[in-house]
Amino acid sequence: MRILETAIYAANLAETAAFYETVLGLERFSEVPGRHVFFRVEGAVLLIFRPEATRQPPAPGALPVPPHGPEGPGHVCFAASLAEIGRWRDRLEAAGVGIESDFQWPQGGRSIYFRDPAGNSVELAEPRIWGL
Amino acid sequence: MRILETAIYAANLAETAAFYETVLGLERFSEVPGRHVFFRVEGAVLLIFRPEATRQPPAPGALPVPPHGPEGPGHVCFAASLAEIGRWRDRLEAAGVGIESDFQWPQGGRSIYFRDPAGNSVELAEPRIWGL
Repeated sequence: MRILETAIYAANLAETAAFYETVLGLERFSEVPGRHVFFRVEGAVLLIFRPEATRQPPAPGALPVPPHGPEGPGHVCFAASLAEIGRWRDRLEAAGVGIESDFQWPQGGRSIYFRDPAGNSVELAEPRIWGL
Repeated sequence: MRILETAIYAANLAETAAFYETVLGLERFSEVPGRHVFFRVEGAVLLIFRPEATRQPPAPGALPVPPHGPEGPGHVCFAASLAEIGRWRDRLEAAGVGIESDFQWPQGGRSIYFRDPAGNSVELAEPRIWGL
């Protein structure tokens, strides 16, 4: 099984989407203002939803996409090499993004953590933390 | 950028993890009872967290993994071919899992949706719905 869509949620959708586009450099390719912004990632898509909108059932005549939409900070992690993690740390700090955590896992591999503007915990990690 | 970790949340962690393992056939490879169960997917991992546990700050001396943990139904989507989606629909219904939605996207491609035991909206979709 392969993940095709990873979803995170942001009450402040516009601000959070701008963060993923501008600071993390993701390609925004689809959006419905006030509801969602979608980004391309390698072989998949990252969906950012405004939960207040996606908790509503589909309108009559619209595609029957089931409602969803949690409240509170979620988590997502992007793969990065050790050298890339060092460069990302510098770039994030230069952009005023605080690094909440930065450590080596016992099994080997480094992770750094920061928050997006919605409070989601975003991680950059070496794939070897999972044996990948 | 490539997604390394996709997270979903389940108050009923054991029941929900059993669903992903038994019904969806994912490989469980790591767990901390009452906190999380992790599954291997192609090139990445699917993390299922119990939000009541992951909202707690790390214990003194533990790895400084930042807290997170939303409440309410999230969303995840797995890639499947059109033929696989048909087989999954049969297999899910045989397992007593209701199909909440099943439709063709205007841009081409089929999606089916069902709920995991935590109420998350799980989708199986042809990658071409995203041009992949």
